Amino acid sequence: MAHALTLAARGLGRVWPNPAVGCLIVKDGVVLGRARTADGGRPHAETQALTQAGDAAQGATAYVTLEPCAHHGKTPPCADALVSAGIARVVVALVDPDPRVAGSGIARLRAAGIDVIEGVMEAEARTLQAGFLSRVMRSRPMVTLKLAMTLDGRIATASGESRWITGPDARAHVHAQRARHDAVMVGAGTARADDPQLTVRDMGDVPQPVRIVLSRRLNVPADSAMTRGDAPVWMIYGDAPDDRIAALTARGVTAIRCATGPGGQIDLSVALEELGTWGLTRVYCEGGGTLAAALLAQGLVDRLDCYTAGAAIGAEGTPALGAMGLSLLADAPRLRLTETRVLGPDLLHRWAV
Amino acid sequence: MAHALTLAARGLGRVWPNPAVGCLIVKDGVVLGRARTADGGRPHAETQALTQAGDAAQGATAYVTLEPCAHHGKTPPCADALVSAGIARVVVALVDPDPRVAGSGIARLRAAGIDVIEGVMEAEARTLQAGFLSRVMRSRPMVTLKLAMTLDGRIATASGESRWITGPDARAHVHAQRARHDAVMVGAGTARADDPQLTVRDMGDVPQPVRIVLSRRLNVPADSAMTRGDAPVWMIYGDAPDDRIAALTARGVTAIRCATGPGGQIDLSVALEELGTWGLTRVYCEGGGTLAAALLAQGLVDRLDCYTAGAAIGAEGTPALGAMGLSLLADAPRLRLTETRVLGPDLLHRWAV
Repeated sequence: MAHALTLAARGLGRVWPNPAVGCLIVKDGVVLGRARTADGGRPHAETQALTQAGDAAQGATAYVTLEPCAHHGKTPPCADALVSAGIARVVVALVDPDPRVAGSGIARLRAAGIDVIEGVMEAEARTLQAGFLSRVMRSRPMVTLKLAMTLDGRIATASGESRWITGPDARAHVHAQRARHDAVMVGAGTARADDPQLTVRDMGDVPQPVRIVLSRRLNVPADSAMTRGDAPVWMIYGDAPDDRIAALTARGVTAIRCATGPGGQIDLSVALEELGTWGLTRVYCEGGGTLAAALLAQGLVDRLDCYTAGAAIGAEGTPALGAMGLSLLADAPRLRLTETRVLGPDLLHRWAV
Repeated sequence: MAHALTLAARGLGRVWPNPAVGCLIVKDGVVLGRARTADGGRPHAETQALTQAGDAAQGATAYVTLEPCAHHGKTPPCADALVSAGIARVVVALVDPDPRVAGSGIARLRAAGIDVIEGVMEAEARTLQAGFLSRVMRSRPMVTLKLAMTLDGRIATASGESRWITGPDARAHVHAQRARHDAVMVGAGTARADDPQLTVRDMGDVPQPVRIVLSRRLNVPADSAMTRGDAPVWMIYGDAPDDRIAALTARGVTAIRCATGPGGQIDLSVALEELGTWGLTRVYCEGGGTLAAALLAQGLVDRLDCYTAGAAIGAEGTPALGAMGLSLLADAPRLRLTETRVLGPDLLHRWAV
């Protein structure tokens, strides 16, 4: 199962709206087939692994990180494929919470006389599938918030200088994280100030994440590093003038209207649900400080990746987190440290909510 | 030598103005004596270890973390004691840069026919002796700056709430650090706002560090947790009214006048040199943000201990570092990560300049 989970992990950021699944077909200690959900979400891991195994799959064991599907979607159900191939035993890490599956895949396997074992490395599978589980169960993608800052929590000097606070190792790590998410998201202020590409670079030929900008009035230039690039750009707005919407859509931008809160600002919870309906499972937010603080304050961050550089800027610098409207320490969001890693001169510390 | 260094480390914070030295007397693989510089700086490690070894020291090897002294101070020279005891070989980690020693101890040993090996684990000894080396070579103590803050570099909410951002494990670790320094230092703002004791607590019967407050006008209450305590309190001021000086000295405070800068503020570099003349080798600064930022900006911090809690307060919170007057990122002080440690729910990351 550890091997199947490793295979599955390679699909993160490439298979949405589907889950990243890994499958291994094993008989007499020999691996006959192994696959992950293909880029774009099809074909599924099980059918690829079964194809590799061929007739030898007869009597073999299949290790699958997620319950095989039982419904006819764009592909025939994997549960049926496992039955037809004569698989004797299926080991499953996690039951699929998708209401179209939700145990029916396992039931179909058992009905066909297959021995099914559930819950093997379930915790690891749950972490791996956090994005897919979030989309299915909370109707929104999981959100990873990235902060790259100085020791004192600053992301730019008073004059706006921010390149480069962290070093090349940390930046390469960020590109790898972008590749493992379905989309990279920033606020309008960051889009205007930094004109970022938000693409995955120096990692070879990888699928690019969707670039998302949250901008209440779409007050961002139509001609930007993002709109000049090939990867899709989605902009979420509240109430923008028609001519701005037209100018952006003419540059290939997908403009998505979203409900606004009492102050006229985009309702972040609704925006994330909207992204869930568009199929996103994993969103990587790269700031700026206003968006980051709002997401954290509203409990919409699932994972926080802090890259801390060995530098100090002082209180005149731009804070990594903007105003959160907190008065009591007891109301501050609390996170749990999950990992630390040294990246060249910088420190990565990861926290989960 | 590793053993001798471990012994020496136990003296940190207890032996100023002297260096914390460790000494081991070994013959035929048997440890005949081992000691560190005693609390208060006397007796020295070598004389204690030689006393333990007695006549058996004849022909033995002495491992010493710092060159034995050769001058008649408050104790007779250790080099002479080693010669008299009939030690055959002396292994030294570091030559003592004190001009009263500076190689003359080793010369005296060699003149007596003792085989001397220098530079064994010198780098480790240099780190251990950083405070003493700083006092002798830079005429000021080494400075460790402690920041206990949220993920976004805040030390209190807008309403001033700061207890407790970090958990009990981090706080216990801070008390252990206080014990390993000669003095704990804060700015006047912190003294007024928090009324801290700055003592070492819950560590048994340990010598207490000197408590130091930097206050330009001595605008701090004469009756405070510090002045009610037993450990010495030193206050460094610039231009304070005589009655305030009198009120504080009446409470047992040692008031130390220090030169001021062009803006009337205490010249931190001069203040540290003053502390050096008072014999301090290791100073632990616990803020607040104004003092911490000024020390960092002026290149007066040698080590930075960051305790990061898994919480976020946002931009309204009090920053761990105040204004530093930096405009260019290239002018920001750069530090090197030396250690990370998980302390309960918090993360300690240590940086060196």
